[in-house]
Formats: sequence, structure tokens, C-alpha cells
Amino acid sequence: MSNGLTLYSYFRSSASYRVRIALGLKGLAAEIIPVNLLKGEHNAPAYRAVNAQGLVPSLVLKDGTVLTQSLAIMEYLDDAFHAPALLPKDALGKARMRALAQIIACDIAPLGNSGTQAYLTEVLGVSEPQKLAWLRHWICKGLAAFEAQLTHAGEFCMGDAPGMADCCLVPQVYNARRFGCDLSPFPTIVRIDEACAGLKAFQNAHPARQPDAPEGTV
Amino acid sequence: MSNGLTLYSYFRSSASYRVRIALGLKGLAAEIIPVNLLKGEHNAPAYRAVNAQGLVPSLVLKDGTVLTQSLAIMEYLDDAFHAPALLPKDALGKARMRALAQIIACDIAPLGNSGTQAYLTEVLGVSEPQKLAWLRHWICKGLAAFEAQLTHAGEFCMGDAPGMADCCLVPQVYNARRFGCDLSPFPTIVRIDEACAGLKAFQNAHPARQPDAPEGTV
Repeated sequence: MSNGLTLYSYFRSSASYRVRIALGLKGLAAEIIPVNLLKGEHNAPAYRAVNAQGLVPSLVLKDGTVLTQSLAIMEYLDDAFHAPALLPKDALGKARMRALAQIIACDIAPLGNSGTQAYLTEVLGVSEPQKLAWLRHWICKGLAAFEAQLTHAGEFCMGDAPGMADCCLVPQVYNARRFGCDLSPFPTIVRIDEACAGLKAFQNAHPARQPDAPEGTV
Repeated sequence: MSNGLTLYSYFRSSASYRVRIALGLKGLAAEIIPVNLLKGEHNAPAYRAVNAQGLVPSLVLKDGTVLTQSLAIMEYLDDAFHAPALLPKDALGKARMRALAQIIACDIAPLGNSGTQAYLTEVLGVSEPQKLAWLRHWICKGLAAFEAQLTHAGEFCMGDAPGMADCCLVPQVYNARRFGCDLSPFPTIVRIDEACAGLKAFQNAHPARQPDAPEGTV
């Protein structure tokens, strides 16, 4: 079902990757329009007219309404297209699912996104090894918190169906591997990531499967 | 109504401040237990037993259940204690309210919290003026995005009742002033912040009104 949805996405943006997974889990096809962050397309007037903040992803609904912020978009998909649910039904279960998602979206990702990396390098003159240490520091710290908080995990982060936390976790683990983080202290995370990798929604959302992925992307 | 709620809070933590406001708007009293971040109490075993991540706030329910992450806690309060609502009822309204809250909780606050500041200073050896420029950069960039996205503002961020976005905005404006940001490009934000300042829930949640605020806190 296309539902007339359009997703502005960058293949390696973890926030875009989260929403691509969520769309897949919901069985929703969206037209993907790539925004090349390395070429600065997010700052070009064409994209700023869609998303004044210049961040990806943006989800455009059939009527032209633009939604921003990956967690808000995933919650919208869950509110507007009910089954399968990305969040539990009860208040406490929702709070736990959201807290897991926010460890990644608030405590890890903002410290490692391309804008932050650019400031560290270009303004503060941080060296590549220092930048890599910074990235690994926040990823490891956040994943340790995530692992400790997986108190209701089953096959996935909460029980035996993937939800919003899994949509956040897999892109973060992908980044952790890119930056050479040691994942051995996080056995539950590694196990859940493997379970997710077996599902079509996660496979199709992978950076290497995106239209804007350069040849040879893994 | 106390409802047996306990909030672990630090007077100047903007995430704690958000939840204090939300509790006030809901008419919920919570016992406040201060966690002194400057003295490292968040890393002490006593607090780590409550919140393994060592972050504030943590909300402890009557039965001992611990909730973490300020946005997840505010959503829980809205799910568990219905009126007055902190989020609109419709999916699109919720998406807009959440996107506003997330501009602050994902795109601004993580770059300026005490852990991030400590890494910049202690590990990267960033000078005080450089740190201040960093803080102002992310605050101004984020508030500009927030101002641009206030398309459904009334007296408050969305319409004429305060909601989750207002709970996030006011602590961020407080920090913006602490760090000497120029707020003149953000007239709607300044107007909404003033409207909030007239409400008891916002007044009582202010850092200067907290039990752990040192004498002379403004």
C-alpha cells in the first residue's frame, strides 16, 4: 500500500533508517527521495522548503502535510495505521518502549550525527582519532544503558514482536560497527540485532539497499 | 494529590525541569529527591540502583516502578492521568507536539548537558569561550527551528493550553538566557515563555524554587 507517502531520506542517516524500518513493519510503501547530506542538499532551498530545519527524515503525507523528527513520525505511523503496533497498548509498556527509543534518539545519536561531527572537526579542530573516540564514547555509554534497560526483552526489545525501540536500535548498532565499537559487552543487543536482520522490514531499510547508496556500501 | 510519586531531580537539569512542569500541569504532587550532578551523586551506587544510566530525572511510581527519559515520563503522565492533556487527541496534532518537543530534547539539550560539557572540557580540552560558543550555536540553531515550526501556536506552543512542547521550551529558554543567547530572533518563543511564566505549574517548577537550589539562584 503506498498511501501516497513520501520519505526524504539519506541512506546512512540513522534517523531516516529508523523510519524506513517502521514503514516496512507497518507494511507501508513510501516513495524515497534521497537528500545527500555530504553534498549539502539538506541546506539547499529546495529541501529547506520541505523541512525548514534541514534535517532528515521528513515524511510527506498524501495531502502535502510534512512531518518531522523520527520518533514523532514513528508514533504518527502507529497512531494513524494501527496494526501491527510499534508500541504496547498500556501506559507503562509505552513508557518503557519510549525510554528505550529515547536512549538512542536523545543520548547517543545527537552526539554523533553529521552536523555535530562537522562542528567538532571544522570549528573545534578536533583530530580524526579524537572524533572517533568521542563517537565511540557516546555509543558505548548509551548502548550499555540500553542493554541494562532491556528488562522486558523477548526475541526483540520488548517481547516477541519488533517495535519502536528495535527501529532505533538496529541503525545505532549499524553505526556502532561502522565506528569500530566493541559490542561484546552487549550480548542482548547483539542477539536482538540478529533477530531483526532476519526480517524483511529491516533488510529493505538497510543503508546498502537504498537508492542513494554508493556502489559497494555495506 | 501525591499519588505516591517520587521524582529524582536536579534543580538546573532541563530534563528534570520539564517533568516538574508536567507534574504541575497535571496537578500531581511528587516528592522531590535532589541528585547533585556537580557532586557526582548521579554516579553514586545509591542513585545507580534507581537509574542504571545515572541520568536525571527518574520518576518512581507508588509500586516502586522506575520510569526514565523525560519525554517518556511526560507521555506516561498523559497516558495514566488524563486531564488536562499534554498532547492533542488526533494523530497529526500529536505528531506536531512531539516534533516540537523533540527539537529540544533531541537536537539541542543533548549537546549542552553536563556530561557533554564535561567531555568537551576535560577530554578535548576545549576552552570556556569555545564551550560557550558551542552551547550558543546548538541552542540558537534549535530555537530557530522551533520558532519556524510554531505554525499552530496560540497563547502556547499549540493552541491556547500548555502542552508537552511548552514543558520542553521553558527550560530551554532558561538555559538560553543563562548562556547569553540572543532571543530577539525568536519573538513567538519569547511570547510563549512569558505566557508560561504566568502559570503556577511553571513557577513552581523553576530551578530557583527547588529544594536543592543554592541561595541566590535566579
